[in-house]
Amino acid sequence: MKGMGVAAVANSAQDGQTNAQAQGQAGVTVPPRAELVMIGTEMLLGEIIDSNAARIAQRLAGLGIYVYFKTTVGDNWTRMAAALSQALTRADIVITSGGLGPTQDDLTREVVAAVLGVPLVEDPVALEHVESWFRRHNRPMPATNRKQALIPQGAVIIPNPKGTAPGIIARRGHQAVICLPGVPYELETMLDETVVPYLKRHYVTNGSLHSRVLKFYGIGESLLAERLDDLLAMENPTVATYAGRVEVRVRITARARSEEEAAALLVPVEEEIRRRVGDYLYGYDQDTLETVAGQALRAAGWTLALAESCTGGLIASRIVNVPGSSEYFLGGVVAYSNDAKVELLGVPADLLAAHGAVSAPVAEAMAVGAMRRLGATLGVSVTGIAGPGGGTPEKPVGLVYIGLARGDWTEVHRLQLGGDRERIRWHTSQAALDLIRRHAQAAAPSG
Amino acid sequence: MKGMGVAAVANSAQDGQTNAQAQGQAGVTVPPRAELVMIGTEMLLGEIIDSNAARIAQRLAGLGIYVYFKTTVGDNWTRMAAALSQALTRADIVITSGGLGPTQDDLTREVVAAVLGVPLVEDPVALEHVESWFRRHNRPMPATNRKQALIPQGAVIIPNPKGTAPGIIARRGHQAVICLPGVPYELETMLDETVVPYLKRHYVTNGSLHSRVLKFYGIGESLLAERLDDLLAMENPTVATYAGRVEVRVRITARARSEEEAAALLVPVEEEIRRRVGDYLYGYDQDTLETVAGQALRAAGWTLALAESCTGGLIASRIVNVPGSSEYFLGGVVAYSNDAKVELLGVPADLLAAHGAVSAPVAEAMAVGAMRRLGATLGVSVTGIAGPGGGTPEKPVGLVYIGLARGDWTEVHRLQLGGDRERIRWHTSQAALDLIRRHAQAAAPSG
Repeated sequence: MKGMGVAAVANSAQDGQTNAQAQGQAGVTVPPRAELVMIGTEMLLGEIIDSNAARIAQRLAGLGIYVYFKTTVGDNWTRMAAALSQALTRADIVITSGGLGPTQDDLTREVVAAVLGVPLVEDPVALEHVESWFRRHNRPMPATNRKQALIPQGAVIIPNPKGTAPGIIARRGHQAVICLPGVPYELETMLDETVVPYLKRHYVTNGSLHSRVLKFYGIGESLLAERLDDLLAMENPTVATYAGRVEVRVRITARARSEEEAAALLVPVEEEIRRRVGDYLYGYDQDTLETVAGQALRAAGWTLALAESCTGGLIASRIVNVPGSSEYFLGGVVAYSNDAKVELLGVPADLLAAHGAVSAPVAEAMAVGAMRRLGATLGVSVTGIAGPGGGTPEKPVGLVYIGLARGDWTEVHRLQLGGDRERIRWHTSQAALDLIRRHAQAAAPSG
Repeated sequence: MKGMGVAAVANSAQDGQTNAQAQGQAGVTVPPRAELVMIGTEMLLGEIIDSNAARIAQRLAGLGIYVYFKTTVGDNWTRMAAALSQALTRADIVITSGGLGPTQDDLTREVVAAVLGVPLVEDPVALEHVESWFRRHNRPMPATNRKQALIPQGAVIIPNPKGTAPGIIARRGHQAVICLPGVPYELETMLDETVVPYLKRHYVTNGSLHSRVLKFYGIGESLLAERLDDLLAMENPTVATYAGRVEVRVRITARARSEEEAAALLVPVEEEIRRRVGDYLYGYDQDTLETVAGQALRAAGWTLALAESCTGGLIASRIVNVPGSSEYFLGGVVAYSNDAKVELLGVPADLLAAHGAVSAPVAEAMAVGAMRRLGATLGVSVTGIAGPGGGTPEKPVGLVYIGLARGDWTEVHRLQLGGDRERIRWHTSQAALDLIRRHAQAAAPSG
């Protein structure tokens, strides 16, 4: 396969056809294919990170719809048309994001209409949608927003409960072009309320793809892949490893005629993976260390207090981002200065003087202080040197202590981490959340 | 232009040629063109957000190199080859990210060699690079990592000081294919240390593109675009607006023969924009509200203490992510429970009982408490209902109070925000950082 000519590869029958074409010729049911076309010059200038593609892709994966290509183009008529046209030669479903705003730069409506060869028309439902948004927010509607009521003839709109720009679903034969705005929380609502149900109705056949992601902390990708070497060569289910942000993921994907059958295929493979590397497994699919740590605290009936120095509130912020976290999280102290450690956590000033702020005794005292001051079951502290400055030969950048306190028991972990400031802080938050999870899980009735 | 046939558009001379081809024909100097090919099935499944593209694009924009397309493909030989081949028909420089790891899934080396029509060879420098990484980290090298020493014949390696996988620069005539790993902090270092100097040496001509981004908080994109309507229609410089994450950006881009000339073209346009909407302007280019607030605090000689409820450490975490923030940031309290507000901030229990935790008097008391306990010049507090639960008709989800205290002076702002939990928390952090910036800037000697 690797010797194949490239031009031939790019135009090969497997890749150059849409699902319906392949089905027509081969008479088999293959999953529908989608492509994403992300629109916005700001992404190509690196001014914003494209988080929408992941939102859309997650939903499509959940429906068993393959995404083979994602193309990002600027707000440029010619290149938008080229990307959209190419996507329509390969995919059943093309989802765009961006370019639906009210400004002169926002060209998605015009380009979709031109590529589909239909005129743009003002849609009364869309107009009412835009106007009512401004009414509800007691703002006058700028004249430019009227353009947001235009849709390609024959298309239908996707209601946007959180913003002015309605989305668009335009059909061409069996194909659909689905246009969503670029604002993430508008897009997310529209995906869940309209696009996913639409795709289920029109594209999801009984052939099913089922996927499960296992998430690991504390083991590197190379080592994990080495331990799973034979499994990585399997064909159904397939097993693949991915390096995440200071964690590793393993995805198992099974294909079968029904969802139940595909799900059943996953079970023995997952069990084998757990047997080999289960010590490092912290969760599944949408789990994060903060959601899993929170569930463990809730199950144990524990409350948590934090004392953060180098992470500066990052751990607290991750915990608080989980809805319902007020049940187990009491609060924390961002003790960035020595005075804050003394004043807010009761760390003895002579302990700081004797050992320095980044030391095991101070980490222990911070954890105990947070636990006592807030009356929590578990106190967890972090003190370290995130850099880029502040390192010494004895205490280099990346040196971090994590302290835990529960009743009279305490424990301190010493880590030497690599990477830049952001990575050291993130890694520290991963390590602390994993320790919280492990301790609370060990205490919970169900083990 | 909008009536143009699409097939013709996709293959038009302007878009279907690389820079060298265009220059050869037209005899003019046009800026080099780059395309990005991001590799990783996990991106197409929505398991990770692609932040690398923004890192690469920022550097290219800084060099005046255009990026017209970014394509994301999975770890699939055929589709990787198709994306890379297509990029090479349009671009002078193709930068890939991902697929350089040690596993069976990592195919970038193989695909690049095949597309360029050269064999893969083991490079002794690359092998030493991989081996030395494991030596330095006192780990045995898994056999699979040996594959990371393979490069297309004739290519050179890009040192990777932070990981095992060296990058690759492979040439074909005037074109370069540059392969970088998918791990963000490895990629970033390699970009800055090797790729940017390489591109400067080989591709940056005297024709120059100069861009400046103005960042606004507190004004919506529609209104801003309306105020700048005539400027948005200009051709050189061009002016464009973008909705950010609870902020709006305006990019001014000028083209000229020299950098100085291009930079000079920006000045009058920027001045005009400042004249019209300067009240909302908080910064430029890589500025964020946390870096600007930090600069303002430093200039004023102030220190800051925080008391966060619904943001749960998000504001502190953003401030601490700025290197050197220990100069002005003393610390904060994440007072998530009422007890924490009483114990750590000295908020009177009867005030909480009388007004509730989400109220102006409690916000004020929290700000004063943080200021006094930590001995800071400025105390800033946040209390609100981030949802999804916890709202009432009187105090709906999205209600937020921000308190400020300095000496005997206090001030409380009431906000009613929209969106989901994450957006409300982010918006609150934007609002608080903007208030810190404004207050500190008003106090600084230079105004």
